[in-house]
Amino acid sequence: MPSAICLLSGGLDSTTCLAYARKQGFDCFALSFDYGQRHKIELEAARRVAEALGAREHRVVSFDLRSFGGSALTADIDVPKDGPDPQTIPITYVPARNTVFLAFALAWAEVLETTDIFIGVNAIDYSGYPDCRPEFIEAFEHMANLATKAGVEGRTHVRIRTPLIRMSKREIIELARALGVNFRLTHSCYDPEPSGRSCGLCDSCRLRRKGFADAGMEDPLEYAADYDASAI
Amino acid sequence: MPSAICLLSGGLDSTTCLAYARKQGFDCFALSFDYGQRHKIELEAARRVAEALGAREHRVVSFDLRSFGGSALTADIDVPKDGPDPQTIPITYVPARNTVFLAFALAWAEVLETTDIFIGVNAIDYSGYPDCRPEFIEAFEHMANLATKAGVEGRTHVRIRTPLIRMSKREIIELARALGVNFRLTHSCYDPEPSGRSCGLCDSCRLRRKGFADAGMEDPLEYAADYDASAI
Repeated sequence: MPSAICLLSGGLDSTTCLAYARKQGFDCFALSFDYGQRHKIELEAARRVAEALGAREHRVVSFDLRSFGGSALTADIDVPKDGPDPQTIPITYVPARNTVFLAFALAWAEVLETTDIFIGVNAIDYSGYPDCRPEFIEAFEHMANLATKAGVEGRTHVRIRTPLIRMSKREIIELARALGVNFRLTHSCYDPEPSGRSCGLCDSCRLRRKGFADAGMEDPLEYAADYDASAI
Repeated sequence: MPSAICLLSGGLDSTTCLAYARKQGFDCFALSFDYGQRHKIELEAARRVAEALGAREHRVVSFDLRSFGGSALTADIDVPKDGPDPQTIPITYVPARNTVFLAFALAWAEVLETTDIFIGVNAIDYSGYPDCRPEFIEAFEHMANLATKAGVEGRTHVRIRTPLIRMSKREIIELARALGVNFRLTHSCYDPEPSGRSCGLCDSCRLRRKGFADAGMEDPLEYAADYDASAI
């Protein structure tokens, strides 16, 4: 069975991506990050999801991006609640986050002699983050093959796999359902209440709720605020 | 004054690179990593060097690459002492290390709105690490400009600056001398004694000692073993 590293935040997209990789026959090594994120509760979701989906291992790498700041997720800046503005990159963007995450995935992949790295990035119903776009992923893959021992020796070719990149949130939710994902295990909110309940109004909650609505499905999560489709 | 992020291990190359960046008029933000390296003592050298060379700030980001292992610097594997073999990538290579380091540098650069990142990689008198080669650096720079907010908005262009990449160790040492570097503050050994004294026989000690010999200069560091030029 081929192996793969699967980046896993515990959210809808990375969970679906892991379920997809498992379905494709990969032995999955799930990788999460405790980077000082406001919504650290997602790590608990990641743990549950990795177990439920039969990941071979689940590692959490810790470092503190709060020391750099620059984002509502890693600094003392409010998470916006009034819906995404398609013209700007939102303040929830964490500088170079996917570059850092993929760099660690590459390190682990190289040690395990694995060539496949799955990441649940999405460039359709997404927050406009630069490091979710196909051109970024292609450039990272090219760099990765020059960065590593196996790449230099021509033994292997690293692949950054992004099965969700061209899907709408509705399509991701439908794929997750077809793959048997238990949505109750996942967590998407950027700014959960101390109880863990999702706020319902941050961009991530909004995208998720609209996806469920579009798919005509019920989201099993509880939200603090009623659904408001006006600002999506 | 333009600002720059300078990766700083406290070794000869990164110290020279920082001194060069300062000389070029950059306001330097030095960045080091506590990644579980065997020679953690280098962080003390980095602190001394950052201060001596007038870096505006010196940050140390911590994470544990020992959890992945795969290198004599991060796993329970002996550091080779019998000289480099030019045909193979040595076991001191740490998987994807420079990718991880540059990813963090990019994150900090983006928060500071800095576009210049200095790294003291060298592809002449080096250990054959894949992530020290010009093609890797070029690919990283290309990726970095697609990864970031400013890159996407076309406001800035990230530059990975590698002033030492085509220099021999002798030339680096001569440049360092011209820049007034205090060699006594630096640390190069991969496997220092508990006292901090350098082993003298690891690849890093050998390259350094040969560089000083070629430059006709005396290395002020103390070594546990006599100099042996036979295996360089």
